[in-house]
Order: sequence, then C-alpha cells, then structure tokens
Amino acid sequence: MWAVVPAAGSGQRLGAGRPKALVQLGGRPMFLWCLRALADGGVDAAVVAGPTDRAGATALSGGLRNAGVAMPVSVIVGGPDRTTSVSLALAHVPETAEVILVHDAARPLIGTAVVERVVAAVRAGAAGVVPALPVVDTIKQVLGDRVHATVDRGDLVAVQTPQGFQAQVLRRAYAARTGPATDDAGLVEALGEQVSVVAGDPDAFKVTRPLDLLLAEAVLSRRLAGSA
Amino acid sequence: MWAVVPAAGSGQRLGAGRPKALVQLGGRPMFLWCLRALADGGVDAAVVAGPTDRAGATALSGGLRNAGVAMPVSVIVGGPDRTTSVSLALAHVPETAEVILVHDAARPLIGTAVVERVVAAVRAGAAGVVPALPVVDTIKQVLGDRVHATVDRGDLVAVQTPQGFQAQVLRRAYAARTGPATDDAGLVEALGEQVSVVAGDPDAFKVTRPLDLLLAEAVLSRRLAGSA
Repeated sequence: MWAVVPAAGSGQRLGAGRPKALVQLGGRPMFLWCLRALADGGVDAAVVAGPTDRAGATALSGGLRNAGVAMPVSVIVGGPDRTTSVSLALAHVPETAEVILVHDAARPLIGTAVVERVVAAVRAGAAGVVPALPVVDTIKQVLGDRVHATVDRGDLVAVQTPQGFQAQVLRRAYAARTGPATDDAGLVEALGEQVSVVAGDPDAFKVTRPLDLLLAEAVLSRRLAGSA
Repeated sequence: MWAVVPAAGSGQRLGAGRPKALVQLGGRPMFLWCLRALADGGVDAAVVAGPTDRAGATALSGGLRNAGVAMPVSVIVGGPDRTTSVSLALAHVPETAEVILVHDAARPLIGTAVVERVVAAVRAGAAGVVPALPVVDTIKQVLGDRVHATVDRGDLVAVQTPQGFQAQVLRRAYAARTGPATDDAGLVEALGEQVSVVAGDPDAFKVTRPLDLLLAEAVLSRRLAGSA
C-alpha cells in the first residue's frame, strides 16, 4: 500500500517564509507528522510532492533525514496545482500497488485510526473512500454580498484526507481528468465510480491560517500530557 | 441596541456536567466572554436565554455577578430548542429597540470588530446581516454512507453569529415561523427579506467538542501573551 502526499503549500497564509510542509509543529517539520501516522496505519511507502522548485524539494528531503519515519519516502518536485502534483507523484508509485492513499500534508495530526478505517473500506471493495465529519456551521449560498439561499446541511459532510482508492481506479480518474479538482474522490466520482464515506477525525483539520497552527500546537501539547 | 443570547446548551458533548454557558474558559464562565464583546461593540443591554430549568438560569445569573460586563443583562429560562429560546428572549426586549443582535453563547471569542461590522451594515439599512467565512473543506452531499455529489463550494459560506436585524423584521420573522430554524437569518430569508453578508471572525468558532475548548483556551493564552 502506497501513499501520495501533496505538500506544495507555500506557507504564505501562515506567514512562515518557507514551504508549509517545513513549518515547525511540535519541534518538527509539519509534514513529518502525517508520514508517521500513515506508516503506523499500514502504509508501506510514500511519495511526497513538494514545491515546484528543486530547492524546496531538496529542503523537504533534508527534513526526512533521521526523522524516524518507518517507511521509505521519496520527495519529488510538485506541480503548479494540487491535481498536477498528485498526478506527478502517481507516476512514481509502482504498478504493483493495489491500494493508494492520497493525503494532504497540511492535515498533519491524523490519527492511525482514521487511516485504518479508510484502508479497511478500500480493502472491503470500495472504489474510493473519504473520511468526513458532519457540517457544524450553517451554510449559505451567496451572490456577491447577499444571501441567495440557506443550504440544508442535514446531508452534507466536510471531507478530509487521507482518501483511499483502488489504485487502478485512481489512475483512470487522473488519466480522464479535464482540469484541477477539489479533491481526488471528485475525479473518481466523475468516472461514475462509487465513493464511500467513513467517520473522519476531528484532529485531521487542515492547517491553513495561524489559528490552525495554534490549535495544532495545543493538540500536540495535550497528546504529550496524556501520554506522560 | 439589544442583544439576545441563546445559552441553553447542556455541555454534554464537552463532558462538562454543567450548562455549557458555565463551562470555564480562561478562568471565567464561557458566556461572559461574548457579553463583554457585545457590550464593547456598542450593545446597550442583553437578554440571555438559559437552560430550560430555573436552577440553570439561576446559576447563569450567579455567574454574572461582579463579572464586569458593562451593560445590563437579564437571564430568562430558555425553551426546548434554540428557536423557542430566542422567541422567549425577544419578548423581553423593549419595543423601542431598533436593532437586535442574536448571538450564540457557544461562540465565546468574538472580537469587537465583527460586532461593529454587523451593526454598521444593519444601521446602513440591511434587514438582516450575517458574518460569514469561506468554506475551507470540500463539501459532499451523502446518501447513507455513499457520496451522492460534490458540492461547488465557490459560492458557499459558513455562517456565524452575531447576526443583526432591524428589530421589526426579526419580530415578524419569529411570528411567521413554522418550526425550528437553522439560524435567525433563515427565518428572515423566509419572509423574502434580503440578508447581507459581512466578513466573519476566525475566532468566532463554535465551542462544541473538547477540541474546540482546547482551541479557545489557546486563543485566550495568545491574546494574553500579545497584550502583556
């Protein structure tokens, strides 16, 4: 089982001045946390798609040294958007891989359990699997600065990663894509393949704004206190 | 200008064993934080709709004593759902009030600026005003445990409180309601009145799960460090 990890974020919205994957979280580059969880969840090897410049990819490779990630990880130069980055990374995953997970490095604090839930559903036969949480906020559709409609959130979910796929389905979805996609499952849905939903992980939130980094540090502190 | 503050949450999901409004946050009952921000934002008086039992309302009243909230606040016994609680509270707002804000006590860390943005838009003539943030996660519509469709999030926003209203419009909306509503603006939309959107506040997140409380504590710590 292989994982593809897009990690091309600039870190600009975090005010970091370096690739987001290298922003420090709990004293380590952010992208190391998810790689550990993926390895603990049964992933055998991973391809990380770094920034578009070779220097960024080299910096990520440097961050991997002596990082204690229990699987082989290679870093490649990423593309101008997430979809291209994943596509480039897929070319580095051997054809013998039967299951491929795609996970955003910007969701560093996934637990092993959510990785295992996704993998179990793919192994059980699902073409694609997404972890998701209920939508908490009221969602409205807007036109400019006016509300157009309030959306019924009863059947809506907020989707996270890792998303898991039968490898051949994911490769077909990427071969058939016509442009950037919101997420990988969306490309698989566009093929007409069914995507299953498993319970998400509250800790798998995306680190985008400084507030998210603050929360991530707090979650790590709580984990350390809990295991002490 | 008056504020109505539904604060009937049980605190069950926080594992608190007391009304959510009384859960400690930064050494104070949670609901005091938003009352201070509302007063700082120009609100003259507030009605808090507490739990359905008189003991809960009495406990909230006790929490207000010597709490340094710079406006008169009364606590009433709330209803079985949020919509009923707001309706009961509206009956305690004098008819002379021209603008009414409705704010969830479960969003304790609103800043003064978002209160001011909402108020300014109501004063400028909007029937209703909601603060909102872009939707960050991919949103999918599900049927059971299967994905039905990926929703285009480009024109979706996640709505927060305080929501602001011309008082008579809000009263008409509540008089015309046929059941519980997702939010107050939804009732105003149902009247055919236009609701405007202003920029939300990342700190105005809802405290529902233990993870949210952890984030709220981290935000407060950062604020204290920033002002030291």
